Amino acid sequence: MAQQPSRGLADVVAAATALSDIDGTIGRLSYRGYDINQLAGAATFEEVAYLLQRGAPPSSEELAAYHAEIVAGRDFGGLVSTDLPLVARNQEPMEALRTLVSLASARDPDKDSNAPDANLRKAARLTAQQPVLVAAYEAARNGRALPAPDPQLSLAGNLLLQITGHRPAGRAAEILDTCLVLHADHTMNASTFAARVCAATLSDMHSAVVAALGTLKGPLHGGANEQVMRTLEDIVKNAQDDPVEAAGSEVVARLSRGEKIMGFGHRVYKAEDPRAAHLRSMAAELAETARDETYYLMSRRIEETVLREKGLHPNVDFFAATVYHYLGIPTDLFTPVFSVSRMAGWTAHVIEQHADNRLIRPDSEYIGEAGLAWVPLAAR
Amino acid sequence: MAQQPSRGLADVVAAATALSDIDGTIGRLSYRGYDINQLAGAATFEEVAYLLQRGAPPSSEELAAYHAEIVAGRDFGGLVSTDLPLVARNQEPMEALRTLVSLASARDPDKDSNAPDANLRKAARLTAQQPVLVAAYEAARNGRALPAPDPQLSLAGNLLLQITGHRPAGRAAEILDTCLVLHADHTMNASTFAARVCAATLSDMHSAVVAALGTLKGPLHGGANEQVMRTLEDIVKNAQDDPVEAAGSEVVARLSRGEKIMGFGHRVYKAEDPRAAHLRSMAAELAETARDETYYLMSRRIEETVLREKGLHPNVDFFAATVYHYLGIPTDLFTPVFSVSRMAGWTAHVIEQHADNRLIRPDSEYIGEAGLAWVPLAAR
Repeated sequence: MAQQPSRGLADVVAAATALSDIDGTIGRLSYRGYDINQLAGAATFEEVAYLLQRGAPPSSEELAAYHAEIVAGRDFGGLVSTDLPLVARNQEPMEALRTLVSLASARDPDKDSNAPDANLRKAARLTAQQPVLVAAYEAARNGRALPAPDPQLSLAGNLLLQITGHRPAGRAAEILDTCLVLHADHTMNASTFAARVCAATLSDMHSAVVAALGTLKGPLHGGANEQVMRTLEDIVKNAQDDPVEAAGSEVVARLSRGEKIMGFGHRVYKAEDPRAAHLRSMAAELAETARDETYYLMSRRIEETVLREKGLHPNVDFFAATVYHYLGIPTDLFTPVFSVSRMAGWTAHVIEQHADNRLIRPDSEYIGEAGLAWVPLAAR
Repeated sequence: MAQQPSRGLADVVAAATALSDIDGTIGRLSYRGYDINQLAGAATFEEVAYLLQRGAPPSSEELAAYHAEIVAGRDFGGLVSTDLPLVARNQEPMEALRTLVSLASARDPDKDSNAPDANLRKAARLTAQQPVLVAAYEAARNGRALPAPDPQLSLAGNLLLQITGHRPAGRAAEILDTCLVLHADHTMNASTFAARVCAATLSDMHSAVVAALGTLKGPLHGGANEQVMRTLEDIVKNAQDDPVEAAGSEVVARLSRGEKIMGFGHRVYKAEDPRAAHLRSMAAELAETARDETYYLMSRRIEETVLREKGLHPNVDFFAATVYHYLGIPTDLFTPVFSVSRMAGWTAHVIEQHADNRLIRPDSEYIGEAGLAWVPLAAR
């Protein structure tokens, strides 16, 4: 196949956005002009979702009103009680979320409108619903009732409460909240781009988010954090003695066989991904709290080994795996939990696309045969 | 907002494909090297789906085996009997199809594999299932039972049988078959591109097709044929006397108000869309058979008026509306029927993307503010 300059659209500008910006050379990510290093630990996920969807940081009154929209949005009529158990029994997590969000549009009072105010309301509702869907899926497949949300808890706190069945202890809710802040938006990643391609036909926000969920499902995108965890779990299972030593030698062995180590390198960042530094320090904190540093120390050893052998830095998925693990999130819900955060970005991108729309319709290079004569079936 | 050269990715090559090629200057469309003008009326939709998905025209034996896969693929366990009636009651046609195809992955034996043979089987199954879903939706919302398919009929014949409840008469099945051939693929249109963006994360075929369905749902893409029909219906309803005269004067009035006439112009074709010529002549044939040429003559008058006033040719959506109408397809199922055809192209593009994959991850231009200082909530 002919190589061509824009294959995979690397370095091709596909859209203008005021939502997020990456400087890959110095490793900087910002949302609407605020460096992620300022936001991590200082802004809540609700504030960041508001900032992305509505354009500026909320005042106290605006944040209270947004929080009320989130609380109200958690009520989706019969979806969780009737449809979800059936879907949860038959579909894997990301497959189920794709179906459930597609089902959810039926109950959205604004589903037929792409008007700015309708889009803002839908964005808040989808942001409110996604953590409930993830937790309700976990409850349904385990035959448990979904714990009632606590309106006093943050979105992150409720997500932990509803997934694990108990109130988050210590700094767990704050740490998950910071994870959600770090993952909320990231320019034209594949799922966000799919959402914009969909929205650019003036299709609706639910369709765009469903496209994004199906795109995030792929192992080259959302699946990476789960694969990092499975690698760690496999190493622990097979380690003859110290799993930290085993992690280092396993990575050397894999690299010598030319295999890729999940969670390293990124098309956009040449310097360290700024999100990785925050996730590393949260992983360290949780490991200490858990009094079991195994996964953290294994992760550090893998990081050092890959940097030494290949010069690659960990990306956002690498330490997220360890953090989610210490928070008690089941491994196959890592990507769904990521989607809880990225919902803020996806919906904000749909709002932005609809506000100044142009159909996204690229060209292709034709590389097949030409000028063939069709022979009727009887003569073939 | 800053204009930039690749906004909407017009004229940017996003992928290489051997599936279809358009020469917009002379108005030529070909599938795998066969000019659409050779295929229309000479190849069946099943042959074209096979050609697109499997790379070459089938022999008689290959076509018989593919037909058997289509017949077998129509059986989807409980989906049509249990889930569909509920979805049909609560969701509009394209919204429901997005949900139903997302649900259908649960029952696909190859759902977890992107391997070439699994993708070929899934492509045949999705091609078999889409017409059944469309017809079952129509039956369910009207409280009718879905007519049993007839394995002797073509896919197009069965679609008409199952939508309308009676065996297609005269040339109706052949004409719908030709429509399906004409609509099966069209390079990097927005829904196909969304499917490829999704598949390029190594997500699965169902996710990619669900993304495509949500994208096709938008009025700038799949919705156009329905809007053409609604325009014709409105003109008939409001006409004081001759609806053909009314069609001409209504178009002149709309153009003078600067309004867009649906079904005209295309980003890619500068000359006439070759599909439009076939659809025009089928519309004429069906009008004569129906002994009611009103919609056909109105369409011709609109075509002449827009060409004279704006120099624009009809696109694929314009005469498709009249053809589908004469075939007895409800107006709000025009886009779903189009999706039955485009399923062949979407699935073929997923097969092609997976066979030589690269993540599709463009850049964006940042147009927002920079270097802002985050003020804590209490101080805002």
